[in-house]
Amino acid sequence: MSITEAAEKKVKTGGISELDSLFKPKSIAIIGASSKELSIGNVILKNLLYYGYTGNIYPINPKEPEIRGVKAYENIFDVPGDIDLAHVIIPSKFVPQIIEDCGKRGIKSVIINSAGFSEMGDEGMALQKAFLENAKKYGVRIFGPNCQGIINTDPSLKAYCDFTFTFPSPGSVSIVALSGGVGAFIMQSLFDLDIGMRMYASNGNACDVSISEVINYYGDDEGTKAIILYTEGFANPKDFMDAAKFIAKKKPILAMKSGRTEEGSKAAASHTGSLAGIDISTELIFEKVGILSFSNEEEMCQASMAFSTQPIPKGNRVGIITNTGGPAVIATDELVCAGLQIPPLSEKAKQILKETLLPEATIGNPIDVVATGGGKHFRSALDVMINEENIDAIFINFVTAPFTDTDEVARNIVEVSNLKRKPIVCNFMTNLSLERFKVTAKILKDGGVPCYSFPTTAAKAMGALYKYHAIQCRDIGQPALFLNVHKNEVAQILTKAKSNKNEFLTAPDAYSILSAYGIPVAEWRTAKSVTESVKAAQEIGFPVVIKADAASLVHKSDMGGVMLNIKNTEEVKETIEIMQKKFNYPDLSFFIQQFLPGGKELIAGVSTKPELGHLIMFGVGGIYVEVLNDVAFKIAPVTKLEATEMISSIKASKLLDGVRGEKGVHKQGVIEIILRISQLVTDFPEIKEMDLNPILAFEDKVVVADARIKI
Amino acid sequence: MSITEAAEKKVKTGGISELDSLFKPKSIAIIGASSKELSIGNVILKNLLYYGYTGNIYPINPKEPEIRGVKAYENIFDVPGDIDLAHVIIPSKFVPQIIEDCGKRGIKSVIINSAGFSEMGDEGMALQKAFLENAKKYGVRIFGPNCQGIINTDPSLKAYCDFTFTFPSPGSVSIVALSGGVGAFIMQSLFDLDIGMRMYASNGNACDVSISEVINYYGDDEGTKAIILYTEGFANPKDFMDAAKFIAKKKPILAMKSGRTEEGSKAAASHTGSLAGIDISTELIFEKVGILSFSNEEEMCQASMAFSTQPIPKGNRVGIITNTGGPAVIATDELVCAGLQIPPLSEKAKQILKETLLPEATIGNPIDVVATGGGKHFRSALDVMINEENIDAIFINFVTAPFTDTDEVARNIVEVSNLKRKPIVCNFMTNLSLERFKVTAKILKDGGVPCYSFPTTAAKAMGALYKYHAIQCRDIGQPALFLNVHKNEVAQILTKAKSNKNEFLTAPDAYSILSAYGIPVAEWRTAKSVTESVKAAQEIGFPVVIKADAASLVHKSDMGGVMLNIKNTEEVKETIEIMQKKFNYPDLSFFIQQFLPGGKELIAGVSTKPELGHLIMFGVGGIYVEVLNDVAFKIAPVTKLEATEMISSIKASKLLDGVRGEKGVHKQGVIEIILRISQLVTDFPEIKEMDLNPILAFEDKVVVADARIKI
Repeated sequence: MSITEAAEKKVKTGGISELDSLFKPKSIAIIGASSKELSIGNVILKNLLYYGYTGNIYPINPKEPEIRGVKAYENIFDVPGDIDLAHVIIPSKFVPQIIEDCGKRGIKSVIINSAGFSEMGDEGMALQKAFLENAKKYGVRIFGPNCQGIINTDPSLKAYCDFTFTFPSPGSVSIVALSGGVGAFIMQSLFDLDIGMRMYASNGNACDVSISEVINYYGDDEGTKAIILYTEGFANPKDFMDAAKFIAKKKPILAMKSGRTEEGSKAAASHTGSLAGIDISTELIFEKVGILSFSNEEEMCQASMAFSTQPIPKGNRVGIITNTGGPAVIATDELVCAGLQIPPLSEKAKQILKETLLPEATIGNPIDVVATGGGKHFRSALDVMINEENIDAIFINFVTAPFTDTDEVARNIVEVSNLKRKPIVCNFMTNLSLERFKVTAKILKDGGVPCYSFPTTAAKAMGALYKYHAIQCRDIGQPALFLNVHKNEVAQILTKAKSNKNEFLTAPDAYSILSAYGIPVAEWRTAKSVTESVKAAQEIGFPVVIKADAASLVHKSDMGGVMLNIKNTEEVKETIEIMQKKFNYPDLSFFIQQFLPGGKELIAGVSTKPELGHLIMFGVGGIYVEVLNDVAFKIAPVTKLEATEMISSIKASKLLDGVRGEKGVHKQGVIEIILRISQLVTDFPEIKEMDLNPILAFEDKVVVADARIKI
Repeated sequence: MSITEAAEKKVKTGGISELDSLFKPKSIAIIGASSKELSIGNVILKNLLYYGYTGNIYPINPKEPEIRGVKAYENIFDVPGDIDLAHVIIPSKFVPQIIEDCGKRGIKSVIINSAGFSEMGDEGMALQKAFLENAKKYGVRIFGPNCQGIINTDPSLKAYCDFTFTFPSPGSVSIVALSGGVGAFIMQSLFDLDIGMRMYASNGNACDVSISEVINYYGDDEGTKAIILYTEGFANPKDFMDAAKFIAKKKPILAMKSGRTEEGSKAAASHTGSLAGIDISTELIFEKVGILSFSNEEEMCQASMAFSTQPIPKGNRVGIITNTGGPAVIATDELVCAGLQIPPLSEKAKQILKETLLPEATIGNPIDVVATGGGKHFRSALDVMINEENIDAIFINFVTAPFTDTDEVARNIVEVSNLKRKPIVCNFMTNLSLERFKVTAKILKDGGVPCYSFPTTAAKAMGALYKYHAIQCRDIGQPALFLNVHKNEVAQILTKAKSNKNEFLTAPDAYSILSAYGIPVAEWRTAKSVTESVKAAQEIGFPVVIKADAASLVHKSDMGGVMLNIKNTEEVKETIEIMQKKFNYPDLSFFIQQFLPGGKELIAGVSTKPELGHLIMFGVGGIYVEVLNDVAFKIAPVTKLEATEMISSIKASKLLDGVRGEKGVHKQGVIEIILRISQLVTDFPEIKEMDLNPILAFEDKVVVADARIKI
């Protein structure tokens, strides 16, 4: 179901989400419950019992009167009360019938753990279609198939509808993962970090309930403070963007997309439910909707710890407090690399520290209270950092030096952290196999101070907090909407080209479309003969460019079909005659265009991604694109902020400001071209590709000098 | 002591290292032992006892008859037997006298834990000088001051000469760290990973025993399989390179240098014993001698686990075995990013797998034995990977699925790992709070299989193993030595320039020096007048460049003192007359040079780093250097392999091969210029800076067109 549909339905049902029956089931049937130890049908029952599910459990098994001490039923129709949710763990061929039964029985959601569907070729796909039809008929929501299930740790519910082996305590981080294997180790990681978890969902083949719907559900869930997402791509990226763009502003979504390399995407294609093909679009989706993207799952889990207890910083200025030198250096490096600043302290702060710290302490930022510094020294440093106006967040290196009262230090950190005025992360260097330090660790843990074992790890978590602040501040705005465009004119050209079955538009068509959307192009004429060409050139004014044009002439530039810098009538004549000899096509014509020397060559382009739409590309022409691959992409429609980011994000960006005595280019003109292209392809989705290369940028104007449009 | 001196001394003493008394002390005096709980003088004694030191301990305290049950002595002269090593934990002002006493008493090594020396300004520095003099007099080796100390876990010794709180089991990884804080958490990390440790050393102010000596000592230690190094820079980088270059080939050195950012280096400068200033040279040192460089200390520690048990792969081809899809995708991404390949399997291998794996298994690379796969399925996959000729290393994703005999899987992994034919790393996804899986984990651990909790982490460790293979294969060779150079000629020019107190050489001098070393320069003449200039230009042949030259004319290019592309006699006259008017200096002369249009502009340069020598720089001229900062550096003297790497490592490297129809440049000529520059500055260390910009590269030749040399 799409996010829009789901939202409409929710409104109709008075705010009750359909997914409540999945995530908050009052009763669960296990169709395929088994008394065989280690079987999935046994493990799921075992887990529900072990975790302390507070609702009713109905094992369904035609042969057993009870399983694991729970009364079993021959079939779902024998079950007395309502059933909110059913697990299905029977061979795939029986699933369509069972779903029909579930529908008749009034079951609202079904988790199909069984495999043997779309991941197994045509036969499996047919079964999947069959059960889906039955589900739609009765309004049964399907989770899976070929999936783990869901977990809801809410103490009033304790629904562990999954066959995994990690039993998390309640917390505020919710997980949704395409891959159960990845979801499970992320859950385990939160468990190992003792963060706690709110909800979990891994939906395997995802034939009905989608990641987008789950994200949406987590977004509305008050108990969820942060969301972790793992995916290998999106079946319906637009739907995902619709869901995520609102939620990402409300609560942090930490996400990782694998299949970043060609080899990785091949590996992804070979396993269940994943989408093949290396793509850049998922990263662009994350950026557009404001999702924190990670390429390292360990860092993602570590960061979630900070999000689960700490406030979001109001800026990028970090105060560092340390009781040992080296780790502060490492932390400083990593913080700075993450875009954070370590500003100097005010004179007032320094004065306080001078009076309160040990004489061997280092007064500055970092503040080194030294290893012999105790609770009161840490507290003084913490108070200073909390009160400093130009400090937004506090980073602590705390080694449990054996000659100090480390519990006292921990208590002071907790007291300041509890103020919730500025986020605190702590690189806590200790030996947890010693009882003494276990106590210290517990004080910090119970006080909600996120503790890490390495300065770089802690600094990366701080970096993620700051990045989320930046995301919250970044309002990309609405796509630009230029009114002085001629939509009808473009529609006519495209209709004609389509009826002619042209894949590539002719040069006049391409330039006319650009002009219709207010994109400046170098002045041009078409001509069939020498005479017409000379006339055209004289009208435009010298120098000109001459391009041969014919349907079968695709790579004209490589074939000598483009001549630049034609300076006079004589040269026009010569050129046309040479081209007429070379390209003996019946439909040969000539494209005469103003030649504009001395501009900076830029490139803009458009490509199409299935189910997502257009990507807009921008770069500096020539070797920057060809050798350095220095280009920026955004998903259309592009806003003014995004267009500006495209220009500033390329490495050669400085070139546009002018270097080595050259003048800068008219950046607003460049931005406007990007925005108008975006509007054009959004208005006309049938445009598949567009290549404006080069765009010539001058100090006072920007002009498209060559264009190719594919429909 | 320098590495060369240390080596000579070791030969004289019959192979016994002086540092044996530090790392393998038979008896230890604790000067400043204290009965006060939590004092350093108490903690050190406690640690020695707790860890089970097998030698004699002599607490020295004028007031106490015994401390912690150990007989104490009033002073070191009262101690009955020999003393190998003394801890000094007394106020800094008493240290010079105590060192004198130690010398008289025949103590061979002293760890000075006390602070208050070079890190505390002039007064402290004077004390440090004073005790060092006394130490030299008696041949006492000093470790520290202001340091933690050493640890040797050898079961026959168990020397814990440190006040930290982590008590590692014996292992094969040795640590040396400038910062005790960092050293301690690295040790703790190995402890948490249950890797074990061999030796530990953190030498604080490092006034005598240096990191280089320690590295050298670890290199000779048979029990050390891998070395971890943390530093913030080197006081004597050449000495370090001398030590490290041999050891790095013998055993892996995993290193991290912090202070990578300006802010980080400032933080480093403010704490004990560190060197200020952001530098690129430490990374270059690591590269030159073959050290595995890390920017993330957690990754470094994780990698050391793989090195401690696994063989080094013989190539970069990895076979992946998994029992869950997603984690294999993540692993594949990271492995590929680390330069590894995931080759397809042979037909024979696929046939075996088809016959032995479950029907739902994925046959390929990765092999997915699926979650229900058991020991025999894993074993079949492992046997295939061990026998595949085009597989060098094995990556395992092992989730402890609750429906399999996970111990059986673990035993099979261990059996194959024990063959030691190919390295194995394992991403082991489990819940260690469950007894059942603790057993599985112990089987893997006891079997020496390095286990990680995240696929990316495991893949990074595998990447490090491969990188070390690449280091072992990379023989940079000897610096090139061209015989057709005119050393005397250069010596004369430099002597004259020095006597004239010139900081920058004149253009004729600079070009003469280059020519003397066989570096091709554009043909040139000097001239004082119009007549001489015309003559010079005619001799060279048109077009020419004219450059004004005078002692006070530094930025001549910006002042209009350089005119390119002078095409004839008339233009020469005009140019000279204009310049004569513009630059009214009494010493004005003209530099007439061949003008070579159409070459690719390259840059080479030389800078000097204190205590290290020259760095050679190479890049593509213009915006590549100015805007993209696309340059490569190496430490002189440079070998042919290194010069080749410089060229291939810059992003614009492809430009030299020719792009967009341009021809490639004469790369051998570029390499030779780099090598000859390197030889020149190595022969003449008084050359401080050199700037060859541009060097013009053509298809068949490479010529220096402008040169600046600073002495």
